[in-house]
Amino acid sequence: MNYAMIIYLLGKIMEIIGAMMICPFAVSLFYHERSGIYFIACGAVTLALGSLICRFSRPKNKSFYAREGFVVTALSWLLLSVAGCFPMYLSREIPSFTDALFECISGFTTTGASIVPEVEKLSHCMNFWRCFIQLIGGMGVLVFMLALLPSTGGQDLYLMKAESPGPSVSKLVPKVRQTAYYLYIIYFILTGLEIVALIIAGCPVFDSICTAFTTTSTGGFGVRNNSVAAYGPAVQYVIAIFLFFAGFNYNFFFNLWSRKFKDAFCSEEIRLYTVIFWAATAMIAANLIFGYGQDVEGGFRQAFFQVGSIMTTAGFSSADFDLWPALCREILILLMLIGGCAGSTCGGIKVSRILIYLKTVGKELSQLCHPRSVKVLKVEGKALPHAVLRSANIFLITYSLIFVISMLLVALDGYDHTTNFTAVASALGNIGPGFSLVGPTRNFAHFSGLSKYVLMFDMLAGRLELFPLLVLISPATWRRR
Amino acid sequence: MNYAMIIYLLGKIMEIIGAMMICPFAVSLFYHERSGIYFIACGAVTLALGSLICRFSRPKNKSFYAREGFVVTALSWLLLSVAGCFPMYLSREIPSFTDALFECISGFTTTGASIVPEVEKLSHCMNFWRCFIQLIGGMGVLVFMLALLPSTGGQDLYLMKAESPGPSVSKLVPKVRQTAYYLYIIYFILTGLEIVALIIAGCPVFDSICTAFTTTSTGGFGVRNNSVAAYGPAVQYVIAIFLFFAGFNYNFFFNLWSRKFKDAFCSEEIRLYTVIFWAATAMIAANLIFGYGQDVEGGFRQAFFQVGSIMTTAGFSSADFDLWPALCREILILLMLIGGCAGSTCGGIKVSRILIYLKTVGKELSQLCHPRSVKVLKVEGKALPHAVLRSANIFLITYSLIFVISMLLVALDGYDHTTNFTAVASALGNIGPGFSLVGPTRNFAHFSGLSKYVLMFDMLAGRLELFPLLVLISPATWRRR
Repeated sequence: MNYAMIIYLLGKIMEIIGAMMICPFAVSLFYHERSGIYFIACGAVTLALGSLICRFSRPKNKSFYAREGFVVTALSWLLLSVAGCFPMYLSREIPSFTDALFECISGFTTTGASIVPEVEKLSHCMNFWRCFIQLIGGMGVLVFMLALLPSTGGQDLYLMKAESPGPSVSKLVPKVRQTAYYLYIIYFILTGLEIVALIIAGCPVFDSICTAFTTTSTGGFGVRNNSVAAYGPAVQYVIAIFLFFAGFNYNFFFNLWSRKFKDAFCSEEIRLYTVIFWAATAMIAANLIFGYGQDVEGGFRQAFFQVGSIMTTAGFSSADFDLWPALCREILILLMLIGGCAGSTCGGIKVSRILIYLKTVGKELSQLCHPRSVKVLKVEGKALPHAVLRSANIFLITYSLIFVISMLLVALDGYDHTTNFTAVASALGNIGPGFSLVGPTRNFAHFSGLSKYVLMFDMLAGRLELFPLLVLISPATWRRR
Repeated sequence: MNYAMIIYLLGKIMEIIGAMMICPFAVSLFYHERSGIYFIACGAVTLALGSLICRFSRPKNKSFYAREGFVVTALSWLLLSVAGCFPMYLSREIPSFTDALFECISGFTTTGASIVPEVEKLSHCMNFWRCFIQLIGGMGVLVFMLALLPSTGGQDLYLMKAESPGPSVSKLVPKVRQTAYYLYIIYFILTGLEIVALIIAGCPVFDSICTAFTTTSTGGFGVRNNSVAAYGPAVQYVIAIFLFFAGFNYNFFFNLWSRKFKDAFCSEEIRLYTVIFWAATAMIAANLIFGYGQDVEGGFRQAFFQVGSIMTTAGFSSADFDLWPALCREILILLMLIGGCAGSTCGGIKVSRILIYLKTVGKELSQLCHPRSVKVLKVEGKALPHAVLRSANIFLITYSLIFVISMLLVALDGYDHTTNFTAVASALGNIGPGFSLVGPTRNFAHFSGLSKYVLMFDMLAGRLELFPLLVLISPATWRRR
């Protein structure tokens, strides 16, 4: 294990997070809020510590492998979360350290599960910070570092692999740094477009900025107590449309940009995502209109918005969907598990893996009937490499294992099965709200400390696609060979 | 597709099921019950039809492959269920055909989910039939046929594969017929021993016979309204002990019999089963004693009994475990999914697959840290064949797919998530009771017709390990090449 290199990269991460705290400080100056002092103080300390670390640990040996990549990724995210929660905790806006850490991890991982009963009571700079860390967490902090900093060695791909969602990392361009750069450009353009669209639709400027941050990052934090239900239909439609696109694989936008329209629209993953998205919307809309007394426009809007919000794992709510008919609720639970496309900012199992699973079952059935036939599993027109198939299978197994173990631990709090199941599904899928006691009108404050730490682990595990965290806590990682 | 051979084998199955109806008829003679007439009538008709079919469809070409194996297995089980439900329906003891079919499929698949509100109101011969079909379904009807009838060609292994639980079929002895014979011998010895033990423990003779039938088959039908809660502690302990052993892989008993004690006790699957079994028992007992006000003996007995009943997927209840603390309930839900060992009469995912999954994740973690290391996945001391690993992965994917689709369909009834989730888990795992509206004091009568047919499909799919039913309904099967 190349400890010097790991420490050096962690120092860089501290510099970045410290520097970022200038943004909420600027917001506090604008609104003349006292809490800003904590951001500038914490920012300065973090930045100084980071610089010191980087100065004194310049690693001579820059060799860097998968193991270091996983460890750096896991440690970076822990570090981010701890550093990011100090302003919340020290300003006493979130008086408990566990709660502040929960809120911060929920932010960086773009989960959006909150322990704050009334977000409107928080200061503007605090709300800005909550949404800003979702923006940073959405595309990934290490990806951000790669895009900004000069390359420090051969570690780029390992970092990118460990932090990016999906069964396989497809680089947009041959160079990792360049890919990271393009990803952030697309990401910021989408965010900018949404801010403008929201302001045009009549949303206040501060709300527009914060909401756009948490839409493109599919985070789901909001600055209103009743989430998106606080805004009018026009704003809800704008958010829903941007959510729909936020679930796309970013390759799509890159292909559009590079005028490879055929590649963009022929993607099997995007097609399956679109089919699931609109099928779910249609079913829920029908159920709301015919079984729940909604008018046609309202039913469609609620269905469209909520499918967008849950499938992309953002987790906004435009209505208390916990009161909806059973079919709607089961569809939403299913969408929680599926999530958006790989290579997007979404959580969940990811549509590309679902595609692989569906094709595997299809192939197996035909193979069972005709055992001597030879059939190759093709995804996106190419034969699926065995390693990708294997890792998709292992992902499902690991997801299920973490799921059930978390559920057992959360069950110690004594809540009902729906609460336990959806709280874990929500944390592991980086969604936000669940059902029953973690429904859209509730929050996560009532859980015990143990449950909160379990859910924090799940949020990080879900965001980092399970393995970095598992590698970090696996004894094999730390054993000398 | 060798249609003549398929029809011939289905005819044989009809002969067997027809002949079996003599048993409940004998019971009706003993108790002077009118319903017996329906058994002898239906039995005679089924037997006659079967004989006719066998007489006129003697296939010249006996070639028989996997596809035919799956199709025959799926069709046999459908045929069994339909033939078996007629006495229930015609006698008006279960007045609805859908309900009678549900009860019969629940019987043959050893699920034990009932639509009968008060089983004590049924006649003795009807209750005997309900338990007797579980005995037959537990080890498998085709296996029974193999054990009894002279071999008709090379189809034996395909039939055995399609009907036997677990990721791979291990033959006890080189010949399939001989293996089937030994399996039934062990099965009947266990059943006989339990009948004697139950009578000694003070259980009425009729109850002892019926309960032993549904214990060794891990079926879970009972002849009392409140299941096993009707009997004293001694009877409950006897049943719990036999349940514990019913979850073992039958290889264990065969190895004991052949005095291969080392092979018997060194099985990794049996060890993992035992660890999960007693860990769950200990956790539930502790939770019941310290968190639910049970005395030590009662808490241990309830925990032991209920873990045995749920993990082996029998589904008896000695208490209303739906009222137990949340942790107990989540553990039981988890056990529902796991099930017993492969090569037992249990349903669920099976411990051997769980073992494969756990080892896969362990291997993956070490591989992620040390990408160039070469590690072989070993189960039971032997390298795991790739085909078995692949089929275990595909099983998990298919299980999940069938699970979520069923849940969506059942959700149309408008019940809560816990009801939908556990009803499907219970049907697919062949357990019996679930939680909430399908809890141990409730039954499945309140579901709509659609939900009942979905659950029937799940019970059959779960009993036959998913694929025979899927092959039957897959268009690829029926396409000419």
